[in-house]
Amino acid sequence: MKPEYFVLDVDGVLSTGQFLYSSKGKVFKIFGPHDADGLRMLNGKLKIVFISADYKGFTISKKRVTDMGYTLHKVSESNRMDFIEKKFGFKNLIYMGDGYHDAAVLKACAFGIAPSNARKEAKKAAKYITESKAGEGAVLDASLEIIKRYFQ
Amino acid sequence: MKPEYFVLDVDGVLSTGQFLYSSKGKVFKIFGPHDADGLRMLNGKLKIVFISADYKGFTISKKRVTDMGYTLHKVSESNRMDFIEKKFGFKNLIYMGDGYHDAAVLKACAFGIAPSNARKEAKKAAKYITESKAGEGAVLDASLEIIKRYFQ
Amino acid sequence: MKPEYFVLDVDGVLSTGQFLYSSKGKVFKIFGPHDADGLRMLNGKLKIVFISADYKGFTISKKRVTDMGYTLHKVSESNRMDFIEKKFGFKNLIYMGDGYHDAAVLKACAFGIAPSNARKEAKKAAKYITESKAGEGAVLDASLEIIKRYFQ
Amino acid sequence: MKPEYFVLDVDGVLSTGQFLYSSKGKVFKIFGPHDADGLRMLNGKLKIVFISADYKGFTISKKRVTDMGYTLHKVSESNRMDFIEKKFGFKNLIYMGDGYHDAAVLKACAFGIAPSNARKEAKKAAKYITESKAGEGAVLDASLEIIKRYFQ
Repeated sequence: MKPEYFVLDVDGVLSTGQFLYSSKGKVFKIFGPHDADGLRMLNGKLKIVFISADYKGFTISKKRVTDMGYTLHKVSESNRMDFIEKKFGFKNLIYMGDGYHDAAVLKACAFGIAPSNARKEAKKAAKYITESKAGEGAVLDASLEIIKRYFQ
Repeated sequence: MKPEYFVLDVDGVLSTGQFLYSSKGKVFKIFGPHDADGLRMLNGKLKIVFISADYKGFTISKKRVTDMGYTLHKVSESNRMDFIEKKFGFKNLIYMGDGYHDAAVLKACAFGIAPSNARKEAKKAAKYITESKAGEGAVLDASLEIIKRYFQ
Repeated sequence: MKPEYFVLDVDGVLSTGQFLYSSKGKVFKIFGPHDADGLRMLNGKLKIVFISADYKGFTISKKRVTDMGYTLHKVSESNRMDFIEKKFGFKNLIYMGDGYHDAAVLKACAFGIAPSNARKEAKKAAKYITESKAGEGAVLDASLEIIKRYFQ
Repeated sequence: MKPEYFVLDVDGVLSTGQFLYSSKGKVFKIFGPHDADGLRMLNGKLKIVFISADYKGFTISKKRVTDMGYTLHKVSESNRMDFIEKKFGFKNLIYMGDGYHDAAVLKACAFGIAPSNARKEAKKAAKYITESKAGEGAVLDASLEIIKRYFQ
C-alpha cells in the first residue's frame, strides 16, 4: 500500500490523556517532548490530520494541533468509523489511537498504531505498538516506524 | 444480588489523587482518559453517584462530576459508613474507593473495587482490583467488570 | 526514646518534588492524597512541623502546610543541621527528608524516614523507607509506622 | 581533558519534557527537585549554559534558567551542532541532552550525558546515563558524576 493519510487521536496519543480541572472546568492538557519533531519528519510524505471526541477540551487540543501546523476535526466516538471512511478511506490510512472505541478503526485501517500505554482493547487491534508512552514520545516512535516501513 | 448503585470516591479513583497548589490554595485536580466512556456504558443500568471528603477541592470535583452528568455528595470520612448505609444500603451497592478509610465500606458493600494504585488497606478489603491506575482508566476497567459480572 | 517532634521537609516529601513554571515563575506544586489523613492520626501525639529551603515557592508550600493546620519554617540547606538542633534537638526528633542535604539530619535524629523515591544519599541515611513515593502517600506510610513503633 | 563548559538542553533534561497547554497555548513546564542543588555544586568549576529549541515555551524556560542564575540561548535543532562548535567547541565541552537531534552533539563532545528516560538515540550516543529521570534529579546525578570524574 501507499500511505496517504496519517490520522491521529489527540488525547492519550499526542497528550498523556490527562487533563487539569479547576472549579471552572477543563483548563489544561499535558503534552510531551519529541512528538512535534517526529511529525515534522513526515511533512511532505503524508497528510497529517488530528481528530478528537473531547468536546469540553476541544479548544485546548485545537490550539496545540494548530500550533504545530496541522488541522483538528471534532468527531464523536460513535461517528468515528463513518467519518474516517468517508473522509479518508481505510485503504491508504495509517491511524494512531489509544481508546476502547479506537479498536474498530485500528483494525480497519492499513496500519494501526497504539501507544504502549493504550487500552488493551486498542493494543490488541493495532499492528504496531510504540515503545514510548503517550506524551513521552509515542508519536515520534510512530513517525520513525512509518518512515522505516514506507519511505526508505 | 442485583446491583442498584455504583458509588465512587473522586480523589484517587476518578482523579489521580494529586492536586496543584498555588499560593492561593488548591486550584487544579488531575483527571484522565477512558473513565467517562466507561461510566457512559453503565448509564441506565445503575445509579452512579460520587462522594468526596475533600472540602478544599470540592468545587473542582463537583465541576468534573457534574460535567459528566452525575451528582457529588460531600461526606467526611468519619461519616462515610453511616451516610452510605442510610442513603444506599450495602446490599445492592457497588463501591469504588482507594483510601485508608475506604476499607470499611469496601468490605461492607456487595462488590468492592479498588484501583491498582490504591492504598494497600483498600486493596485488601476490595473484591476486585483494576488493572489500570486511578486517572489512567481505572473507572473504565471497573465499568467493564461490572457489565461482565452483572449485565451480560 | 519518646518522640516529641515530627519534622518534615516539604518538597519531595509532602509534594512530589515537582513544580510548574510559567513565564512569571514558580506557580504550582503537586501534592497528593492520603498524607493529610496520616498526619491527622498523629495530632495530639507529636508536634508536627514543616521546613523548606525553597525560597521561590515558599508561599505555595506555606499555603498547603497552613491549610492542614501546621507551621512551616524557612530554613536554608546550609543552616538545616544548626536550626534543627537548636529548635528541636535530635534526641526526640523524627525527621523525614528526601534530598542530598537531608542525609546529615536523617543520620543525626532519633528516627529518620525517607520516601521510596528519595535521593539514594537520603535513603542510605534513613532508618525507614516508605513503600509509597512522595506525593503518593509517603507521609501516611510514615505516620502509620510512627504509630506502630511509638504509640501502640 | 579539562572541562570548561557544561551545556544543557532544557526540555527533557532540566524539565520532565512535558508542558501544559490551555486554549491560549503553552503555559507551564514541569521541573523537579535536586537539580538546582546539583548545579550549585559546579559553580566556580565550569561555565554552565542552557540551550533550547522550544520557541513557543522559550519565556518559560528562560524564567526558570535565569531564576537559577544561568543563561539560556535559543538554538534551533538544525543549528545546534554549528552553534555549539563556534561558541564552545567540542574539546572541553560536557553536554547533556535527551532528544533525537541531540545524538550528534552527545557524540561530538568530550563527555555526553543523557537522562535515563532520554530517547534511545540520545542514550546510545551518550557516555554517561543518569540513574534518575529528567525532572526527578537527572541534573544532580550528572553534576555529582562530573565532580567525581573531573574535580576530585
